[in-house]
Amino acid sequence: MPEDEALTNEHRSRAAAWFAALRDRICAAFERLEIDYAGPDADTLTAGRFARTDWERPGGGGGTMTVMRGRVFEKVGVNISTVFGEFAPEFRKEIPGADQDPRFWASGISLVAHMRSPLVPAVHMNTRHVITSKAWFGGGGDLTPIYPDPEAAADFHAQMAQACGTYEPDAYERFKKWCDEYFFLPHRDEPRGAGGIFFDYVDSGDWERDFTFVRAVGEAFLRAYPPIVASRMDDEWTPEQRRHQLVRRGRYVEFNLLYDRGTRFGLRTGGNTEAILMSLPPEVAWP
Amino acid sequence: MPEDEALTNEHRSRAAAWFAALRDRICAAFERLEIDYAGPDADTLTAGRFARTDWERPGGGGGTMTVMRGRVFEKVGVNISTVFGEFAPEFRKEIPGADQDPRFWASGISLVAHMRSPLVPAVHMNTRHVITSKAWFGGGGDLTPIYPDPEAAADFHAQMAQACGTYEPDAYERFKKWCDEYFFLPHRDEPRGAGGIFFDYVDSGDWERDFTFVRAVGEAFLRAYPPIVASRMDDEWTPEQRRHQLVRRGRYVEFNLLYDRGTRFGLRTGGNTEAILMSLPPEVAWP
Repeated sequence: MPEDEALTNEHRSRAAAWFAALRDRICAAFERLEIDYAGPDADTLTAGRFARTDWERPGGGGGTMTVMRGRVFEKVGVNISTVFGEFAPEFRKEIPGADQDPRFWASGISLVAHMRSPLVPAVHMNTRHVITSKAWFGGGGDLTPIYPDPEAAADFHAQMAQACGTYEPDAYERFKKWCDEYFFLPHRDEPRGAGGIFFDYVDSGDWERDFTFVRAVGEAFLRAYPPIVASRMDDEWTPEQRRHQLVRRGRYVEFNLLYDRGTRFGLRTGGNTEAILMSLPPEVAWP
Repeated sequence: MPEDEALTNEHRSRAAAWFAALRDRICAAFERLEIDYAGPDADTLTAGRFARTDWERPGGGGGTMTVMRGRVFEKVGVNISTVFGEFAPEFRKEIPGADQDPRFWASGISLVAHMRSPLVPAVHMNTRHVITSKAWFGGGGDLTPIYPDPEAAADFHAQMAQACGTYEPDAYERFKKWCDEYFFLPHRDEPRGAGGIFFDYVDSGDWERDFTFVRAVGEAFLRAYPPIVASRMDDEWTPEQRRHQLVRRGRYVEFNLLYDRGTRFGLRTGGNTEAILMSLPPEVAWP
């Protein structure tokens, strides 16, 4: 085995192992919140537990959906996947490094949480490692409060900024701007939520440094989000607030199906439909 | 005024007037069903009435949304619009006749009904007249039962077939096939519903004949759908059937936001967002 191939294999297995380990830690933290819940109907509702479903990709690889429907997390999916194969000709020009060699390998974690309480922000986090004839990391995390929640937004951004700060001095500024531009609904002239960070094609030439950054984003998510949930989940809400939540969730659906690159690309390339659409909210209203 | 310009103006006003008149007749038929309703909770629910909202298009023209939230029709929009202007450069290659001259005029009626009872099929109908340096009609109608309903599907198709039969011997076969191909969700490997007809770029060279066909489609809709509603709306349904309806509606949202040309084109070209997304169901679930 040539030295660079051995190195690439080591990168693959370390990245995939990290995504799986991060999944386990996030699921444990979320199940802890389910147990600690003491808000509305706590005595009649049971704490949720994650359930896993494996799937295989016909073209190569597969993944695991880990889903919980609980009393705090109305629906949360924490999916990991490691897939490989060859890009179809129509996608080779869209993907860096795929025009010369259509083979690819990709591994990642993707998380979307829709909360029962309209007072607890929804959240999204995703990081991935993609290898074609090039190799890079992508991902991000962003918060979607149902009602404006400057304190939650500030806490979330502070952790993401800290992760970025360990990487490059201007990384937070750049990745925050990219997030604001990406998670925008032009037909509503609205941002999707309170933003966060978004990055792609991260390849500084130093794989260890880039991988350290991606792990820092996962750690930042783990520091940021569970406390936001914990400090809001027990508060009472009204039917009107719940109704507003269902309507705001419509914007989430509109973004994901109209614009989200991952969703549209995944569905067009024969990805696992259930895993891709796990991001859609459990109940939605368009009044 | 040159003779062909006078003729085009006459075509425009007759088409727009037909769409408005059809809207009035459909709304009257639907309000009649609301009054006649004698099903679950008939004594506690009030018969719905349509409400109109006008909107103007910044680039030229405008439309009227006519919406009812009733006890039979959970949410139904019957929208008409007449818009004109110039296509942006990026769309000129997509639209027949727009590459030479970017000016366009378009008028149409668009209807989507989401029903309260899971035993009453949802429905969509749309017809339009588009004039660039060419001129054509497009549209169609299709039925989406929540549970398979071969009788409703057969009745709906029979009326659409009759309308097509007055136009060309093979029109129904062609337009039915086009509908089946168009209203298909590849990521689910599922048709959207029970089909109907779909057509576009209808321009036989005889405007009167084409316009007669488009009117026949509207008449066929009026003959087909209200009786389907009337014979099913009073039947009792279960919470499980209602739940299934909300899940099936998710497929409707997926189709409209991922694939529907009208929705995606309308949103990208600065159409009226509220009018375009009027097609989305009032309540939806992704379990």
